[in-house]
Amino acid sequence: MKIELDCLPCFLRQALEASRLASADESVQRRILKDAVTIIGDYDSYAYAPEVGRAIHNLVKQHTGLSDPYRELKQRNIELAKQVYPDLKHFLFHHREDWLYWTLKVAATGNVLDAAIYGEVQERELLRTELERKFAICDSVEFAKKLQTAKTLLIIGDNAGETVFDRVLAEQLLNLEIVYAVRSGPIINDTTIDEAYLSELDRHARIISSGCDAPGLVLSECKEDFQEEFYRADLVISKGQGNYETLTEVDREVFFLLKAKCPVITEDIGVTMGDYVFMSNKNHR
Amino acid sequence: MKIELDCLPCFLRQALEASRLASADESVQRRILKDAVTIIGDYDSYAYAPEVGRAIHNLVKQHTGLSDPYRELKQRNIELAKQVYPDLKHFLFHHREDWLYWTLKVAATGNVLDAAIYGEVQERELLRTELERKFAICDSVEFAKKLQTAKTLLIIGDNAGETVFDRVLAEQLLNLEIVYAVRSGPIINDTTIDEAYLSELDRHARIISSGCDAPGLVLSECKEDFQEEFYRADLVISKGQGNYETLTEVDREVFFLLKAKCPVITEDIGVTMGDYVFMSNKNHR
Repeated sequence: MKIELDCLPCFLRQALEASRLASADESVQRRILKDAVTIIGDYDSYAYAPEVGRAIHNLVKQHTGLSDPYRELKQRNIELAKQVYPDLKHFLFHHREDWLYWTLKVAATGNVLDAAIYGEVQERELLRTELERKFAICDSVEFAKKLQTAKTLLIIGDNAGETVFDRVLAEQLLNLEIVYAVRSGPIINDTTIDEAYLSELDRHARIISSGCDAPGLVLSECKEDFQEEFYRADLVISKGQGNYETLTEVDREVFFLLKAKCPVITEDIGVTMGDYVFMSNKNHR
Repeated sequence: MKIELDCLPCFLRQALEASRLASADESVQRRILKDAVTIIGDYDSYAYAPEVGRAIHNLVKQHTGLSDPYRELKQRNIELAKQVYPDLKHFLFHHREDWLYWTLKVAATGNVLDAAIYGEVQERELLRTELERKFAICDSVEFAKKLQTAKTLLIIGDNAGETVFDRVLAEQLLNLEIVYAVRSGPIINDTTIDEAYLSELDRHARIISSGCDAPGLVLSECKEDFQEEFYRADLVISKGQGNYETLTEVDREVFFLLKAKCPVITEDIGVTMGDYVFMSNKNHR
């Protein structure tokens, strides 16, 4: 999907948040914001919002010398997610009649662990409410049908911490050969190889780098072997808003699993803020 | 007060809102945003946030050819305020024991009619709640003391609609010679001479133009006769956030009367979002 004008103030807000997270020095923050403004002014030379996001977060890295400003936050989110992991399994035990729906819902709920939007991790006590909340759009019946003959599943990961919730999904889909794709380098709080291993996703999936380090998978930038995986997989699940933004027009079926957290996304999908979505690009575009 | 980094995303958000209000043509909106980004990148060449605000809103005027994009909104706000005018008088009748406190509170409550922040006018039913809400900071006792000997009061106006609430204030301060200062030209939803007359402020005050058309009074830009009024007045009340931003360091006593609606202002004053404030710059800086 294209970059909307509403994204522009949000880019600047993200630049400010990231600069403050990475440096307490206001002069550094000011320099980052100055350069971020230049990037934002040039927004129409980018195809997707996550590409602008990457450019902005790269500025933060350049100005602060930190290669991974969100490293600690990512680790904290994974620890937090691991603490609630037993609750997730318990939740699924109590929802075993419609196990696939609720397993997908668990993976979608992991998407609340998004520092780029929330600023801080959702409180544990809110988790239950979020878990119980149903999908606003759900193509799980269609997904279930395809699951009967599918042998391989590619999951395109999103944030660190959310990865632990995705592990629950991978555990439930026992019969599939699962590939879990991550960013090729640190970008915001997105998962890289490191965080995927820290989340113990390797127990249930083969972890691969997509070759792209934008906070949304830009297929044309990906490594050839990833692109092969992408087109070869019987099923593809794309997690989060960033991947949605870059993959909506792609030439194969993708199931998007996300929580809608910004007005541009809610408008595009046709849901309301905070809604959970599991939808195929074949049904809704 | 200086321009904080938090203002930058907010400037861009305001540019977007204003461009959409002034034109339905997305290509026009995009051009406005492009130029707004350039202005924002150059923010440190401005002394005050309202100067950047003016530059951005001037862009909207240039790109759309509209000299007063908020004209209808201002008139609507005044009509709405006139409709609740009897309620305000009624409210004051029921709060006559502490009339000065509540009269100031009425004038402060008018500050909710702020399109630059709210996007649309506060619902009438919420007005009562807002009116009853007490000041978080209130120097009314000190103001009352000075009122005993004061002969002249200068009110620096803010938004159209709020002007009708200010009329209630002017009506109660019968013994004073009141001067009501307005922007020299249309800027956002701020009151100019036209809206001040439409609000019938001329019944109780002498309406003058400050000579400045920024959405916050920049004293150095003001006409000489306004500057004389400013220093000669026994009491000065400054309405709203914009005037607060430009007048905090001024070399005479000013009583700021406002509702704190943005994090930069709440941080600066030391109150929480939505709080009402009536404070002298002599007490709190």
